[in-house]
Amino acid sequence: MSEFTHTEFFEMDKQHFIHPYTDFSTFQDEGSQVISHSEGVYVTDTEGKPYLDGIAGLWCVNIGHGRREMAEAISNQVTTMEYYNPFGHSTNKPAAQLAAKLAELSPGNLNHVFYGCGGSVANDTAVRLAHYYFNMKGLHSKKKIISRCDGYHGSTYLAAALTGIQGTKYGFDAADNLVEYISAANMYRRPVGAEDLTEAQYCDFLIDEFENHILQLGPDNVAAFIAEPIMGAGGVLVAPAGYHKRMYDTCKKYDMLFIADEVVTAFGRLGAMVASEELYGYTPDMLCMAKGLTSGYIPLGATMLSDEIYQVISKPQCEGGLLSHGFTYSGHPVACAAALKNIEIMEQEKLCEHVQEVGPYFFEQAQKLADLPIVGDVRGSHFMVGIELVSNKAEKSRFPVTAGIGQRVFKHCQERGVIVRPVGDVIVLSPPLVMTRDQTDILFNALYESIAAVTQELGLG
Amino acid sequence: MSEFTHTEFFEMDKQHFIHPYTDFSTFQDEGSQVISHSEGVYVTDTEGKPYLDGIAGLWCVNIGHGRREMAEAISNQVTTMEYYNPFGHSTNKPAAQLAAKLAELSPGNLNHVFYGCGGSVANDTAVRLAHYYFNMKGLHSKKKIISRCDGYHGSTYLAAALTGIQGTKYGFDAADNLVEYISAANMYRRPVGAEDLTEAQYCDFLIDEFENHILQLGPDNVAAFIAEPIMGAGGVLVAPAGYHKRMYDTCKKYDMLFIADEVVTAFGRLGAMVASEELYGYTPDMLCMAKGLTSGYIPLGATMLSDEIYQVISKPQCEGGLLSHGFTYSGHPVACAAALKNIEIMEQEKLCEHVQEVGPYFFEQAQKLADLPIVGDVRGSHFMVGIELVSNKAEKSRFPVTAGIGQRVFKHCQERGVIVRPVGDVIVLSPPLVMTRDQTDILFNALYESIAAVTQELGLG
Repeated sequence: MSEFTHTEFFEMDKQHFIHPYTDFSTFQDEGSQVISHSEGVYVTDTEGKPYLDGIAGLWCVNIGHGRREMAEAISNQVTTMEYYNPFGHSTNKPAAQLAAKLAELSPGNLNHVFYGCGGSVANDTAVRLAHYYFNMKGLHSKKKIISRCDGYHGSTYLAAALTGIQGTKYGFDAADNLVEYISAANMYRRPVGAEDLTEAQYCDFLIDEFENHILQLGPDNVAAFIAEPIMGAGGVLVAPAGYHKRMYDTCKKYDMLFIADEVVTAFGRLGAMVASEELYGYTPDMLCMAKGLTSGYIPLGATMLSDEIYQVISKPQCEGGLLSHGFTYSGHPVACAAALKNIEIMEQEKLCEHVQEVGPYFFEQAQKLADLPIVGDVRGSHFMVGIELVSNKAEKSRFPVTAGIGQRVFKHCQERGVIVRPVGDVIVLSPPLVMTRDQTDILFNALYESIAAVTQELGLG
Repeated sequence: MSEFTHTEFFEMDKQHFIHPYTDFSTFQDEGSQVISHSEGVYVTDTEGKPYLDGIAGLWCVNIGHGRREMAEAISNQVTTMEYYNPFGHSTNKPAAQLAAKLAELSPGNLNHVFYGCGGSVANDTAVRLAHYYFNMKGLHSKKKIISRCDGYHGSTYLAAALTGIQGTKYGFDAADNLVEYISAANMYRRPVGAEDLTEAQYCDFLIDEFENHILQLGPDNVAAFIAEPIMGAGGVLVAPAGYHKRMYDTCKKYDMLFIADEVVTAFGRLGAMVASEELYGYTPDMLCMAKGLTSGYIPLGATMLSDEIYQVISKPQCEGGLLSHGFTYSGHPVACAAALKNIEIMEQEKLCEHVQEVGPYFFEQAQKLADLPIVGDVRGSHFMVGIELVSNKAEKSRFPVTAGIGQRVFKHCQERGVIVRPVGDVIVLSPPLVMTRDQTDILFNALYESIAAVTQELGLG
């Protein structure tokens, strides 16, 4: 790559690169910060300023940045066999080995993998295969997918419909007629009538809502429920105890599939390689992975399917018939080699154990922010934390959008050399899993100071 | 990666990896061939047998397999900055530089790029942004997309609907209510009433059909037309002269966008970096790229947008509003670094000029197959060729599906150390662009012998 000046990179970006989730009211003036180096838990911009990466790139760089072993594994695979297609009964070693490894790591009989290149496509594929499954069983009316308000499931035409975050809907079309939304499992902000329930009662409330919704649609018309173990981009929302298992049982009662979107949680973020069974006591029918699967080093996604689903969808069709789904880059050898090395590093360095040990400390430090007058809620688990900012704690009042409260805190942290992620008024943290206690302290000191400074600016201190 | 035996790789694949477009009537018995090495125009299986790769992996390995420069560029980027997200006004050097380079290579004012990870998502994104564009202009009823029978546009819920190949529809649902299909531009097999037209008259026929279809739907309800310059997976179908320009003009007449799906054709396959303007004389409003963009070394896709579209979609929304589309791996630095090196290699080695020189020879050799009694049609251009097999040339009779004619030719070629791709009864060729005349001869000798052998087997010689 030929070298350009910092200004040239900045200008090329501003003129030609349309960023995901762009705010154009500021983009055309401000342009982008150019991140040019990364190592461990730090990234560095073109000014040479290092930042403690409190969000692991985007919930994904689980093993930390710039690992030489990854570069070597990736480079070796490129020179050995960089690409050949997996269509028509051909395969490659890393895709085969990774498929077996993912079957081993996944709970229950989730033994079959359909590969894509990221989370959106993993979820898109899950729904397409759910439809195919019911069509093959002759249940042609089972089409609807039930998702949750504030669920985030990606950005294809279908995945955008699965996404229940209201703020993502403006101006776009999506496959909305296919999807029905129920309430988020949101302990902090509940629907009218559920505010004063105990945790157990609130769980009953949510299960009842789900079941009523299924009955209203007619179980014959509903194919699946999709849910994240902890809702991520919706603001790190933790469900009441027992919720997932009971949602799963309700799915089984009505012959629906449970699709677990573990794009954020899988590969250690909560201290387990896969969260569903180990942490929440249920085994989904399909389980979607991406991000932590390769720690983001090379794009890869995976949709795991149960034996029972595989048996149905792998029945031969008519002579010459094909299961007509898949991508050029399904099972890409370089991406799969990256995933194998990533998982090997996680296992050798016992990163899940590390998260189990340091994660509770990380969460404790987060909870100390609750002292601050504008911190309304601190929630999450281990290395997945959300801090909701409010103008009045007792009334849980939201700041006006024009206050740009999340963005202000982000900028203060940035000045202090720490990256956090503002999602509306929620500050999201999802650091690399190699983060230490000392680095945890650096992060939360900067964040405490930043929120305190914003509180001062607003005259709320 | 720990090493397993060949049998172990074979078994892991068969037990756990669901391949794209799988034929399960044979998969569970036969399993997969494991491709373990690749270099230049050859790939090698675990038995150590080399094969001349006549399909460039899957229309994609344009610069040839196993290039050390690519491994080095990829490895360097992994150690320098393997991933940081491009959301919220941050960027990375390779994504910025590649965006500028793609704007330079793309015709007209296609100056803005939205990145994804492959062709399906590039097309899915194009349609989502087309809807957003018309919504922003207040034209909320412009939704329908016109596609073509036998067009191939991918495998997400939306891209599968854009795809007009009948054989891909069995058992799956897709966003079909959004898409209308018109005839393929198929010189060999035309609709009733168009069989005996001259090429120019057949072109008129197709343009009329398109215009009538728009008028029937009402132009206010139609957003875009999507088309490949030469239809790929539909069987390498070449349109009559002047077709694309006139289809483009018709789009403009009715305020529709023309989306060029150049996933297969871009980056040299027909002797031009981008085919639309240079070879077909029109500049689309959106242009989708993938495959040749990185030569398949790392998954990457791109949707190029015109200045006019960018102006509309980049208008700031309400305060705090975002263009809510995009992916974790949009503008992935390692993928973009791979694309930059790939393009650099193409330019330094003058691969377009090479294709312009050897491509006509390649096509000539293909045309010699027409001597064989079961070769009904040889079509395509340069390094993109389709050979349609028929049981009776005069009547263009198709073989019964049970004959598995394409698969038979594939297997004969495989025995002779050459890979071709059977798409139904069409043998598709799309070699690496570095292919020489000598390698071309090896390929066509094997293919000639294989088709001749199958002809013998069937008693048609």
